[in-house]
Amino acid sequence: MIDVIFYEAFEEEEEAIKELLPDGISAQFTDKTIQESGDGNPPAELISIRTQSRVPKHWAKDVKGILTRSQGYEHLLAFRQECNAGISLGYLDNYCARAVAEQAILAMMALLRKLKKQIDHFSAFDRNGLTGRECRGRKVLVAGVGRIGSEIVDAAKGLRMDVKGFDIDPKLVGLSYVSLEEGIGWADVVICALPLTEETEGMLNYQALQKARPGLIFVNISRGDISPAEDLEKLMDEEILGGVSLDVYPQEPVLAQHLRNGQEGATNIERAVMGLYRRGQVLLTPHNAFNTEEALAQKASLSVDAIIYHIEHGSFPCPVPGG
Amino acid sequence: MIDVIFYEAFEEEEEAIKELLPDGISAQFTDKTIQESGDGNPPAELISIRTQSRVPKHWAKDVKGILTRSQGYEHLLAFRQECNAGISLGYLDNYCARAVAEQAILAMMALLRKLKKQIDHFSAFDRNGLTGRECRGRKVLVAGVGRIGSEIVDAAKGLRMDVKGFDIDPKLVGLSYVSLEEGIGWADVVICALPLTEETEGMLNYQALQKARPGLIFVNISRGDISPAEDLEKLMDEEILGGVSLDVYPQEPVLAQHLRNGQEGATNIERAVMGLYRRGQVLLTPHNAFNTEEALAQKASLSVDAIIYHIEHGSFPCPVPGG
Repeated sequence: MIDVIFYEAFEEEEEAIKELLPDGISAQFTDKTIQESGDGNPPAELISIRTQSRVPKHWAKDVKGILTRSQGYEHLLAFRQECNAGISLGYLDNYCARAVAEQAILAMMALLRKLKKQIDHFSAFDRNGLTGRECRGRKVLVAGVGRIGSEIVDAAKGLRMDVKGFDIDPKLVGLSYVSLEEGIGWADVVICALPLTEETEGMLNYQALQKARPGLIFVNISRGDISPAEDLEKLMDEEILGGVSLDVYPQEPVLAQHLRNGQEGATNIERAVMGLYRRGQVLLTPHNAFNTEEALAQKASLSVDAIIYHIEHGSFPCPVPGG
Repeated sequence: MIDVIFYEAFEEEEEAIKELLPDGISAQFTDKTIQESGDGNPPAELISIRTQSRVPKHWAKDVKGILTRSQGYEHLLAFRQECNAGISLGYLDNYCARAVAEQAILAMMALLRKLKKQIDHFSAFDRNGLTGRECRGRKVLVAGVGRIGSEIVDAAKGLRMDVKGFDIDPKLVGLSYVSLEEGIGWADVVICALPLTEETEGMLNYQALQKARPGLIFVNISRGDISPAEDLEKLMDEEILGGVSLDVYPQEPVLAQHLRNGQEGATNIERAVMGLYRRGQVLLTPHNAFNTEEALAQKASLSVDAIIYHIEHGSFPCPVPGG
């Protein structure tokens, strides 16, 4: 039996981890999720996933540790609740906050400046309908001011934007905090950087966002289940939203698997996502905001450290809280 | 005869100017250049163009004033040299520096993060080959630190980038200036904001850019004739350039006219531009960096002021220097 299997490891990540892993540790890699792999039993006592694998309940008896190579760990909390087994669960701390924040800023600027349409119009050198909006002086609400949200605040202020924050536990010094309702009514841009919890699930739904001024740009780089895709479609139809960029999706594991298999739009949620996808002022990316050279190097290093630590100590350096 | 004709006025601009123009001034609008319009004689004594019209030599005897609705006026200098007529020539001062700067920053971020590929990969939810680079800490050379260049410096510093400038006449306090050669060898990103002069024409050619470290991102938002398209293609083939974004093109009036007529690639330069266009890490926009709501409002207001001023005083408030 090998020591550890890495699911959901794309090319560049596999390469970076292999380079750092000591010779004494035997590892296997796949870019598939556990579900896509078809593995009936765990191939190793240590399992490493990202956010799209669901660890089967019956694996609990053979597995000693599960490491998610992500900052979010709500899927491991769900696994713990389901299995109630004494398996150690770990996550990675703060490896990609700036990468995610910069992707949010890029998405916002691309929508403000109608970048997709600008590129489309090059072939006929046509400038009609391409008037955009500037960042400087524009109002951004950052919903969720944790590690990633704080970096978004920093970059947006750097671009001379007018920034306010919403958070259930305001901590960032020098930032003006508002209620969600007040912030949405005030903003030109809302960026969602909230963690997914019972409280935040569906928090940025139709009811919340319909209070926006017409033309609001909405960017979500945290978790899709915070903002229902059907609601975003409806808000675009009603011209309350002027642009949407998503890097994350409701029920993302299923959506991602269906898209990889070429099965488009099997569920209502997926049909709504694909409906958004076909619009001009919508920019969808495949949960890739974390993916920079800088973050990848940091992530590979933290992942290998966590695996070595578990082999030596039987636990992870960053354990999922509440275990 | 009408008082003034506005060539190259796209929908949104026409609307904004019409709203501000006093009732007593009769005006005509077209989104065509003078050449595309087929006008054999000037329809008005006051002619307003952007950068793609060439005022025919024989119009000189019937025209009293020519206003270019742009910050660059090299085409009016060429006209003056050719005609040697006492026609007043005007331009617009500083209406869009931030708009252009923000487009340059957006283009840079989009290339650093492989945004086109990220969008392409959504349909199969595929993350392979999407690893990007972060702005923070990365090195940018701003070539040409005038009004637009200074705004680029400000925004890039705001994103915590390491910024240096090149300029024949360094003026910006607090910026570290280098020679062009030193800057290109040092940078991860070069942004061209140079004005087009005899000295700068072809300045960022193959010879200059080949000294870059492999993977350099090159962005040009000032004038295409500063950087030959064939050279940029060659530098991408040789993997010295890792990404190119252009909003401006060599011999742009001809290229734009051919693209609008669906005649693609009639000249070597055009073939090189279209060769770039088909690459993944290339982002081409139709000379649209100036085009924001903020800049448009400012531009319409300055244009109308200049026309009223000329009708009253026989000259422009911002005359093209050297007349």
